Amino acid sequence: MFQARLAEVQRAVDAMLGARLAVRADVPVVHAMRYAVRGGKRLRAFLVMESALLHGIGDMALPAAAAVECLHAYSLVHDDLPAMDDDDLRRGQPTVHVKWDEATAVLAGDALQALAFELCCDASLGPADRRVDLVAALARAAGAEGMVLGQALDIAAETAPEPLGLAEITALQAGKTGALIGFAAGAGAILAGAERGPLAAYAAALGLAFQIADDILDVAGDPARAGKRLGKDRSAGKATFVPLLGLDGARRRARDLVAEAEAALAPYGDKADMLRAAARFAVARDA
Amino acid sequence: MFQARLAEVQRAVDAMLGARLAVRADVPVVHAMRYAVRGGKRLRAFLVMESALLHGIGDMALPAAAAVECLHAYSLVHDDLPAMDDDDLRRGQPTVHVKWDEATAVLAGDALQALAFELCCDASLGPADRRVDLVAALARAAGAEGMVLGQALDIAAETAPEPLGLAEITALQAGKTGALIGFAAGAGAILAGAERGPLAAYAAALGLAFQIADDILDVAGDPARAGKRLGKDRSAGKATFVPLLGLDGARRRARDLVAEAEAALAPYGDKADMLRAAARFAVARDA
Repeated sequence: MFQARLAEVQRAVDAMLGARLAVRADVPVVHAMRYAVRGGKRLRAFLVMESALLHGIGDMALPAAAAVECLHAYSLVHDDLPAMDDDDLRRGQPTVHVKWDEATAVLAGDALQALAFELCCDASLGPADRRVDLVAALARAAGAEGMVLGQALDIAAETAPEPLGLAEITALQAGKTGALIGFAAGAGAILAGAERGPLAAYAAALGLAFQIADDILDVAGDPARAGKRLGKDRSAGKATFVPLLGLDGARRRARDLVAEAEAALAPYGDKADMLRAAARFAVARDA
Repeated sequence: MFQARLAEVQRAVDAMLGARLAVRADVPVVHAMRYAVRGGKRLRAFLVMESALLHGIGDMALPAAAAVECLHAYSLVHDDLPAMDDDDLRRGQPTVHVKWDEATAVLAGDALQALAFELCCDASLGPADRRVDLVAALARAAGAEGMVLGQALDIAAETAPEPLGLAEITALQAGKTGALIGFAAGAGAILAGAERGPLAAYAAALGLAFQIADDILDVAGDPARAGKRLGKDRSAGKATFVPLLGLDGARRRARDLVAEAEAALAPYGDKADMLRAAARFAVARDA
């Protein structure tokens, strides 16, 4: 049931992004943008749609779901650049700077970020004050106190004199992965003009669980299924959870966090079962 | 009088951006963001403030002025990257990737773009529907149909089999420089909920005049005053107006465009004199 709903969100988001990026397809950078937003689990989009449903909002939330996927795709394109993580494979395909060139990757990422904010302005998302709140929340999640902060700390960690401790890695990941997941899980509340309340606690636990699962995949995953180079974080001296917790310890911690995420949704009762399933999926996935 | 007003806008924008970037100053990327937004003519901020005044809006437009400068600063940081224009000097100082590194430059630019959209949500800018319109207009100006499109065409031109014609360069610059200038000059109308009307024609002529003046500076300017490497566009095979029009022809065309920009403001009478002075400044500047 979760997989069916996720597939439904994937199709809807793909259709919306495909339509938005159908114009100027003659320009390489637009072609690169379409390429960059293809594929992906669409977990963030799913969180937007489900947190919206939880607040009585249906398909009208779709532009916000597409927006968070644009923002996420831009961050991957830039993160893969030679000056950043220097990855040549993403979602099983050559990364944007490999398929085109670095300049196109910089520009495609830049334009995807702009598109994310444009999508948040879509009239179908409801009253203007909610849309402004959505834009502001996405900007904070994306910026120097959110995702970019996390990425900057991540890069600094590679050359740090000694490995980061658990508290430091947790803070780093709260920015790098957590901020955007937090935005996605709170988007429905924002669109409904409601308090984010329990969704913030859910997202914090989920975001961390998701990142630990990523770190586990990096050392113990199947590269063919992951669609990206594995084992890379460790060799690059990246700050990850596995060396600190051990593989078993990391798996245990991820499971505990999933339980924590599920428990945070108690006030919503079984209406939040899809979000609970998403939390379980976040650590059970193989890609 | 124009210079005094420009200096006033510079001070106000500097103060606002300084305050916004005072947090997390321990993080190199935030330090780089502060560095990147320093200096600059603030012509785009000026256009925001004056187009706002034209519609009866005063200092409350300041966050929009700061936003357009963040967006502009991000575009310069990314444009200066080795994979893009590969410039090591900007506003008389080492570029961000020279002073820090490429990863910091990518991230600082990314975060400045996010900050621009956050600033457009500032409650002091007035009713939410106007702020949404502002965000949407900035996103379109910044994205794959605006500034990024212009930059992509600019890069493609470097390796094009033959030099671009006048129509092609004009289209390229309408994106690269024109889109953001158009946003700035229209921002006041957006904030007032008014038609952009004559401001669009003013901005189109001003943007092109500004770019031609830039091209003239590149071949005939004083590097010490310009604060950046000159003569570079020509040697890089960049698409510029001077080879097509000749130096005198380019100067004439810039002057004609200024006259056109001034004439477009006729419906506003002498209330628009500051904007007329800005158009004259755009081509008379030496940096």
